[in-house]
Amino acid sequence: MSEDRSKDDNDIEIDFGAGARMQRERSAPSLSSSSSSLREPLLLTRRTNNTSQLAIVGANVCPIESLDYEIIENDLFKQDWRSRTKTEIFQYIFCKWTLALLIGLSTGLVGIFNNIAVENLAGFKLLLTNNLMLKDKYYQAFVAYAGCNMVLATAAAALCAYIAPAAAGSGIPEVKAYLNGVDAHSILAPSTLFVKIFGSIFGVAAGFVVGKEGPMVHTGACVASLLGQGGSRKYRLTWKWLRYFKNDRDRRDLITCGAAAGVAAAFRAPVGGVLFALEEAASWWRSALLWRTFFTTAVVAVVLRGFMVFCRGGKCGLFGEGGLIMFDVNSAKPTYSVPDLLAVIFLGVIGGIFGSLYNYLVDKVLRTYSIINERGPSLKVLLVITISLLTSCCSYGLPWLSRCIPCPAHLEDQCPTVGRTGNYKNFQCPPHHYNDLASLFMNTNDDAIRNLFSSGSVKEFQLSTLIVFFAAIYFLGIITYGIAVPSGLFIPVILAGASYGRLLGNLLGSLSDLDVGFFALLGAASFLGGTMRMTVSLCVILLELTNDLLMLPLVMLVLLISKTVADCFNKGVYDQIVKMKGLPYMEAHAEPYMRHLVASDVVSGPLVTFSGVEKVGNILHALKITRHNGFPVINEPPFSDAPELCGLVLRSHLLVLLKGKKFARQRVMTGTEMMSRFKAHDFAKAGSGKGVKLEDIDIKEDEMEMYVDLHPITNTSPYTVVETMSLAKAAVLFREVGLRHLLVVPKTPGRPPIVGILTRHDFMMEHILGLYPHFNPHK
Amino acid sequence: MSEDRSKDDNDIEIDFGAGARMQRERSAPSLSSSSSSLREPLLLTRRTNNTSQLAIVGANVCPIESLDYEIIENDLFKQDWRSRTKTEIFQYIFCKWTLALLIGLSTGLVGIFNNIAVENLAGFKLLLTNNLMLKDKYYQAFVAYAGCNMVLATAAAALCAYIAPAAAGSGIPEVKAYLNGVDAHSILAPSTLFVKIFGSIFGVAAGFVVGKEGPMVHTGACVASLLGQGGSRKYRLTWKWLRYFKNDRDRRDLITCGAAAGVAAAFRAPVGGVLFALEEAASWWRSALLWRTFFTTAVVAVVLRGFMVFCRGGKCGLFGEGGLIMFDVNSAKPTYSVPDLLAVIFLGVIGGIFGSLYNYLVDKVLRTYSIINERGPSLKVLLVITISLLTSCCSYGLPWLSRCIPCPAHLEDQCPTVGRTGNYKNFQCPPHHYNDLASLFMNTNDDAIRNLFSSGSVKEFQLSTLIVFFAAIYFLGIITYGIAVPSGLFIPVILAGASYGRLLGNLLGSLSDLDVGFFALLGAASFLGGTMRMTVSLCVILLELTNDLLMLPLVMLVLLISKTVADCFNKGVYDQIVKMKGLPYMEAHAEPYMRHLVASDVVSGPLVTFSGVEKVGNILHALKITRHNGFPVINEPPFSDAPELCGLVLRSHLLVLLKGKKFARQRVMTGTEMMSRFKAHDFAKAGSGKGVKLEDIDIKEDEMEMYVDLHPITNTSPYTVVETMSLAKAAVLFREVGLRHLLVVPKTPGRPPIVGILTRHDFMMEHILGLYPHFNPHK
Repeated sequence: MSEDRSKDDNDIEIDFGAGARMQRERSAPSLSSSSSSLREPLLLTRRTNNTSQLAIVGANVCPIESLDYEIIENDLFKQDWRSRTKTEIFQYIFCKWTLALLIGLSTGLVGIFNNIAVENLAGFKLLLTNNLMLKDKYYQAFVAYAGCNMVLATAAAALCAYIAPAAAGSGIPEVKAYLNGVDAHSILAPSTLFVKIFGSIFGVAAGFVVGKEGPMVHTGACVASLLGQGGSRKYRLTWKWLRYFKNDRDRRDLITCGAAAGVAAAFRAPVGGVLFALEEAASWWRSALLWRTFFTTAVVAVVLRGFMVFCRGGKCGLFGEGGLIMFDVNSAKPTYSVPDLLAVIFLGVIGGIFGSLYNYLVDKVLRTYSIINERGPSLKVLLVITISLLTSCCSYGLPWLSRCIPCPAHLEDQCPTVGRTGNYKNFQCPPHHYNDLASLFMNTNDDAIRNLFSSGSVKEFQLSTLIVFFAAIYFLGIITYGIAVPSGLFIPVILAGASYGRLLGNLLGSLSDLDVGFFALLGAASFLGGTMRMTVSLCVILLELTNDLLMLPLVMLVLLISKTVADCFNKGVYDQIVKMKGLPYMEAHAEPYMRHLVASDVVSGPLVTFSGVEKVGNILHALKITRHNGFPVINEPPFSDAPELCGLVLRSHLLVLLKGKKFARQRVMTGTEMMSRFKAHDFAKAGSGKGVKLEDIDIKEDEMEMYVDLHPITNTSPYTVVETMSLAKAAVLFREVGLRHLLVVPKTPGRPPIVGILTRHDFMMEHILGLYPHFNPHK
Repeated sequence: MSEDRSKDDNDIEIDFGAGARMQRERSAPSLSSSSSSLREPLLLTRRTNNTSQLAIVGANVCPIESLDYEIIENDLFKQDWRSRTKTEIFQYIFCKWTLALLIGLSTGLVGIFNNIAVENLAGFKLLLTNNLMLKDKYYQAFVAYAGCNMVLATAAAALCAYIAPAAAGSGIPEVKAYLNGVDAHSILAPSTLFVKIFGSIFGVAAGFVVGKEGPMVHTGACVASLLGQGGSRKYRLTWKWLRYFKNDRDRRDLITCGAAAGVAAAFRAPVGGVLFALEEAASWWRSALLWRTFFTTAVVAVVLRGFMVFCRGGKCGLFGEGGLIMFDVNSAKPTYSVPDLLAVIFLGVIGGIFGSLYNYLVDKVLRTYSIINERGPSLKVLLVITISLLTSCCSYGLPWLSRCIPCPAHLEDQCPTVGRTGNYKNFQCPPHHYNDLASLFMNTNDDAIRNLFSSGSVKEFQLSTLIVFFAAIYFLGIITYGIAVPSGLFIPVILAGASYGRLLGNLLGSLSDLDVGFFALLGAASFLGGTMRMTVSLCVILLELTNDLLMLPLVMLVLLISKTVADCFNKGVYDQIVKMKGLPYMEAHAEPYMRHLVASDVVSGPLVTFSGVEKVGNILHALKITRHNGFPVINEPPFSDAPELCGLVLRSHLLVLLKGKKFARQRVMTGTEMMSRFKAHDFAKAGSGKGVKLEDIDIKEDEMEMYVDLHPITNTSPYTVVETMSLAKAAVLFREVGLRHLLVVPKTPGRPPIVGILTRHDFMMEHILGLYPHFNPHK
């Protein structure tokens, strides 16, 4: 089958010659997408540069479809708008807010469920190990520990590998790409949601150095997408109310809300969630969306708060008070001096260097893993089991290197710790001693962070402990991202950053007025800034996590420095993953070299165009032999004096039209008649993979010779550029307005009314460098 | 002179008939702009609807110029880009960050200066009054109090009325309009900056119910604008480095930073400042800007912090610890129950109703004042003096209505207050008693807010006190905005909101777990939400002010409710003022009725076009008889086979070209020669009012017959739409890409290559309704 497909692609190339370079978007996802589709070309110039097509780690990125954020103005839709009553407009607004509320509620519930499940699973595992160790059964303890980890890891990997490969990894890059207009296959499907939730629970509980933050963002986006499509055809009731949301624009807004809700649920940071959506996730933004996102995250915050109050009485098993990170850095002294500032600057520089190195190594490891992962799901699971074993060995083995510390006197907490959480793990030590490395390793990641952030004496953690822990987490973090489990990047980065931050605090000791816990926070900030390259949103998330506003300037400073330093070396980790997955991401700014090209330089004919009233056979043939998603419609005599551009018709609309079979024997305009036969919502965008497919259409031989009027479904106001328009400015238009197709019209009269179509692929550097290899992309 | 100008306008109408409806932007500001220019038409359809042209309160809004946020790609600029060395690119980046640093530093310094000055002036006044009252000299005390107020008020009004009328009012609407692309006259001029700083100091010290927040935003924007133009021609050194910033795009970015810095300086809220710039001020945003804005506000925060530490020792006169608002609501109980939630919802609804009523009344009062203010500066000053007297009477007179309260026992603070600030003003009361109304009225506004927010016993303020204070502030706030002093809206709104919030807290008493000070905060939030209609930024500003993160969900809730309620009645106060001033503000979304129109419906010919190589006389004539800012350039035979659109040339570029006098006797292309004679920075955008003017150009008779090649300065990549493009989608393009001119090209061949030009005025509702009066603007 994969053979057939590649031949199919070649056919197009032969049929249309250079012209096939345009409209390269793939149509509705093919069911045959096996591992071979991972290597399907995204850009036809792949022979010159194939780094961008490296598909990764089970995330089945092909076929990639672009999204339509443009308002499509065809006669049918216009009639629908005109006929909208006040009730319907009210319905729309009501639905919008109800959906925001529902997204907030669901994401909040998923967040709390995730936390309760993780705390109980991991708590059970840790208690079991603890109990065995107390009885000096060290080997049994290791077997129990590693065994639990492996079972959980295998469950997560099996879900990911066999059910929804798209659920592997963080999910933030995919959501980011979606909001930019790239719809990778099944990224928001129900199966992905299911696997993301349970895979993340199992993965985090399995003791991997992964977070639940990225997966939570992805979960939020999936929830939003499902709610937006909600009801589909099964529940007639909701279908009618939600019909206005059956378009890419409204769906994009919902998913932005979902992403914000995800961050809010992960960190209990409502404002941070909004800012994250704004700074990192979204490509388009408007003030109204700010408000709606804010509402969603507020709902999440209320839900989380309610459940935490409910669980305080111990009604949620081992969940207790913990789970959701909420650190209280009790830095009573909001004063700092020059040495502190120097230390902070130093932390920023270190964070930038470690961060960019981290990104570089993650990239290399991902590329290696993708070779393994492409060989099939069983190898994926095997890789996960290997990493799980390695992680277990590190967590259990390394604490033996640390010497036992006698418990400090006059302590509020119990020492050594009795329960599941706490700073003073006994591990192998004699009574009244604790192992500080075990306090970090043999805890959940959230608790480890809380321990690192805790203010207190300098001596709580030894220098060697922090060095070993940092090295182990840095290394494990890099080799864990990319295996087939949902894995967030925030937690590993915070852990590593906090450990070197606290290390510096310990070293400075009495030289500095600042608390060691606060140094840990600054370290985490610096490493986050160095890897993720966000500023405002990270700053606010850290503020909301630690509830300490007075240290804001220092956190800002450290973030600015680490981002600046890291930007000298490479891109942020999410951008890097987007690029690596070969998703055609449109940057906000046009590249300088685009100024030397014009629109017609990257586009080329001949085109597949339709006449205003076209023969059914021609349409069917064009749909079959091409994979184009948009076709220009040309009005020709006798319908106009000269050939003129009527507009653009979408493949998905043509499929619905053909399925409806309202054909005429004569070549006449039957628009008004058709408008009464079809409803606008017949042409509404279906959920991913649910639209009419070419195979569903059964046209008889005699119908092939009949005509169909395309005018009612033709978007008569497509955005156009003149062929001599600078490519840079065309790219700005494409990006700012959120287009899928941009028509290029001729400058001089007397030529066909359209020169070609630009899609987002035509703006990709790989494509342009394929056409003009001598170009210096930095000039 | 005003007669001449209106005749001039009529001339254009006669010359071009209906065609003059396009390109109505006014060119370089005329020096003759007197009060008559307040009535200059912004929209030619003013006869049908003139609400939007009401110019206001001394803010000399005409002539209005549009800004160019589009990248202009002409041959000269392209050559310049191509020849840029790495050093120059580094210079640009270095400059960008240095400017951000300088903006932060300057705005921070201005902020601290403002606070120190206000605290010392107002402190002196209050101490004087206090001392006289202690000696029972009540009449002398009133005279001293009212006299001080009046002197300060007159100083502020005189500055505003005679030096810079544009400095009156908040300044936020103007900055908002500027960032949308509307350059009102002298809004960012040095004189405006000067008057804004000193006028705001005098106005706030004079005891008006005005804030310094709006003026601070305007100040930040002015500082940014001046720094961006910095050096101009006087300082050769900086000129060279800053030449890349001589365009509207880079200037817009700087001013966004400045606005954010202003909020950060006013509230000491760096994150709030960034969000304010994003949510309220800016119309265009990108991720890179987020970062730069954040840097600027961080610098502001550091400067403020440094000075506050410095001033703590009493080195700044009466400044002490206070001045910059930083309230500590010590609500130790972060728990709330159902009655609390109901109270909060009630507060939200009340806030929405009061807020929209406030906006309505402010609008009415502004319209009334504008009639007075138009009559000349002396009447402006008189109005200010009247309001000052009224305010003094209220502040001094109303506390006599309140009965004296015995000082509570066991108090940390002194009672009655001895110094300048404090909760327990003695006023007319016997020893060991205090007058709670005087504690609010006879303090600076900042201190009054701090008193209202203070946690403490329910009985500190009586119910009647809070009612009287609320009524007085609500009333004074409405009648004070619009007089000729720089007047922010935040403080009056916070004061009024806090008083009814605290009132509700008092009424609920023991029913609620929440602190009365926290109720005051919620009240302030609700009223802010009801007037300004911001959500996220207000929430963060309030958080940063009060340093209390745990109450975040309640603040969010109250903001959401009050905004929703108020939005049912009218628009936010800043939008309302923008509309009232007649500034042609482009909304983010297209109005529904625009879907029923196409581009050619609102545009009309004949046009003034130039040939690629044009006769000097023709250009000069066109520049003289029209006020158009952009002219299409058409290539005609023999330079092309058929007439074709070459691009768009700007008036300002033409003026520089004519001044340079590089003409040729023959009608030939002299582009390459010209490119060597002119440098790109000759055509850089000059500072407001500094460009070449038509009067500066002296063309001799024989030169009139010579030719000049327009190609090098023609923007060859203007954005175009086809004439049948839906107006709604053209508006989206115009707004999203930030255009000044949008060319409309014909659909069918065989016609002139351009149909017309759309400017922002063509998208204004008044213009469209003038053309199509039967239109239902809501459909």
